[in-house]
Amino acid sequence: MAVKLILDLDTGIDDALAIAYALGSPELELIGVTCTYGNVTTELAVRNSLAVLALLGRTDIPVFAGQACASCADSFEPSPLVRRIHGDNGLGGVRIPDSPRPAEQGGAVDFIVESARRYGADLVYVPTGSSTNIAAAFGADPSLADRLRVVMMGGALTTRGNTTPWSEANVSQDPEASDALLRRGRVTMVGLDVTHQTLLTKAATARWRRLGTAAGTAFADMTDYYIDFEASEIGIVGCGLHDPLAVAVAADESLVGVLPINLRVDLAGPTRGRTIGSLEGLAEPDKRTRAAVRVDAERFLAGFMDRTERVLGAR
Amino acid sequence: MAVKLILDLDTGIDDALAIAYALGSPELELIGVTCTYGNVTTELAVRNSLAVLALLGRTDIPVFAGQACASCADSFEPSPLVRRIHGDNGLGGVRIPDSPRPAEQGGAVDFIVESARRYGADLVYVPTGSSTNIAAAFGADPSLADRLRVVMMGGALTTRGNTTPWSEANVSQDPEASDALLRRGRVTMVGLDVTHQTLLTKAATARWRRLGTAAGTAFADMTDYYIDFEASEIGIVGCGLHDPLAVAVAADESLVGVLPINLRVDLAGPTRGRTIGSLEGLAEPDKRTRAAVRVDAERFLAGFMDRTERVLGAR
Repeated sequence: MAVKLILDLDTGIDDALAIAYALGSPELELIGVTCTYGNVTTELAVRNSLAVLALLGRTDIPVFAGQACASCADSFEPSPLVRRIHGDNGLGGVRIPDSPRPAEQGGAVDFIVESARRYGADLVYVPTGSSTNIAAAFGADPSLADRLRVVMMGGALTTRGNTTPWSEANVSQDPEASDALLRRGRVTMVGLDVTHQTLLTKAATARWRRLGTAAGTAFADMTDYYIDFEASEIGIVGCGLHDPLAVAVAADESLVGVLPINLRVDLAGPTRGRTIGSLEGLAEPDKRTRAAVRVDAERFLAGFMDRTERVLGAR
Repeated sequence: MAVKLILDLDTGIDDALAIAYALGSPELELIGVTCTYGNVTTELAVRNSLAVLALLGRTDIPVFAGQACASCADSFEPSPLVRRIHGDNGLGGVRIPDSPRPAEQGGAVDFIVESARRYGADLVYVPTGSSTNIAAAFGADPSLADRLRVVMMGGALTTRGNTTPWSEANVSQDPEASDALLRRGRVTMVGLDVTHQTLLTKAATARWRRLGTAAGTAFADMTDYYIDFEASEIGIVGCGLHDPLAVAVAADESLVGVLPINLRVDLAGPTRGRTIGSLEGLAEPDKRTRAAVRVDAERFLAGFMDRTERVLGAR
């Protein structure tokens, strides 16, 4: 039986790829998307998530608005850097029609809490943006942290960050929230350590384009935009499949090698936003969190193409 | 046949423990000690290494003076913090007589280069202080980096540093030298990730004291001094067996779990002195260096006591 999946997205190009990967994964049943800010505002993440789901023919999946900004902030605007990575509309300037389906009336936090109660161990929650929604859900239901399985895209343990040399973008959005998630939750962290080893090139987007579908063309166009940024700014040939890899690990953990470690986030000092093993936790035999530090990139990429071609080819 | 071992020490309390561990290890033959600065000056490291070897009845082992300070500095003085950890004499104030044997006339760099030529794959080099000597040796013989097996005590990859939250003491002494070692050498890094999981308590030093030997008493006294510092300053019950663990890994790598990763040291910016996986190296299938990230602390500690009791009990 497929595991129920909640994606928590700041949609975003690689968030759209994560949706496609999830919909093409027989191990997973996407029961809802909760939205956060980061690549775009929460409002735009809701709009884009609905639009991408509609493009892929899945207007049956509900989308929930989450927190609009970090617990420590009053508002959120995407940074100039992020606007260049994902484009002003979050989808590399590619126009995807609005969905006929509106966002849900209820909020993201309630949906997460209620789904965890309903599905128990049959649910996995995959946040690929800030940790603000899940930290709020831990606040709303203190027992949630012990029960909910989380596979998080975020952080950087053994490699440099992408917002600063020590901080990854999702964690840097709301370090307090990510710290709460890592200290309290049952988390597998899928960070830059592994996602930067999974590069998608234009050979792959050319395959989508050859599908001759509206979805294949839209995904190829937006991903090419993303690849062009990475090539010109970071100097890597291809884009890291950050968000899809987290979904893949939720479906099949054997794709990565994990290090059991008690993680935390530096909140004070010059390394604010750094994910790191806690000194106190080093001697504890019980490691609460696990960091992905190795990845079978070849197998993941093959599965990524299989799943996305199936989904994009049908529309 | 035992593997030939060169210890590169800034002797130092846990350096003295590393000497005892090495002398008690049938897998290793200590062919010489090269000295560096860090816990003490290079000059005092030479004096202390000779004295500890003499205390353990091994005046047959030569000791070589190495570089006196970092390549980027004019001189070296131990920091006030280090003076408190190891005491002004480097041995926790415990008085160990001078050795009758003088230091060698030749320098540490020549001894390392010549030993590597003579013994090839039968040699392992274990630096437990700054990387200044080995970086100078790489400069003197550019082919050395590819040939010499190095097991280095230093660095912190998945946990905080001990000089700053991002830098470990040995690496922070000479970041450029450690960067050269990690980028060019065949290195297994034994950092705080694992050494802070190997805590020695006063139950162990009491066993040494009960041996009733001069060496047992001296080692118990100096290690108690070290444990008292760690307890009062860091709040951990026991002292991390940093340097002995590196020797143990040189003898038996199965004591640790390693992550193959291309390491580097941050040289610029606020995280100067941080050991971290290189972004460029993430996609390279050939990982030059390996970081120890897990340790069988129980088995190591049992072996540590066996080996040190054998050595300390005999004198």
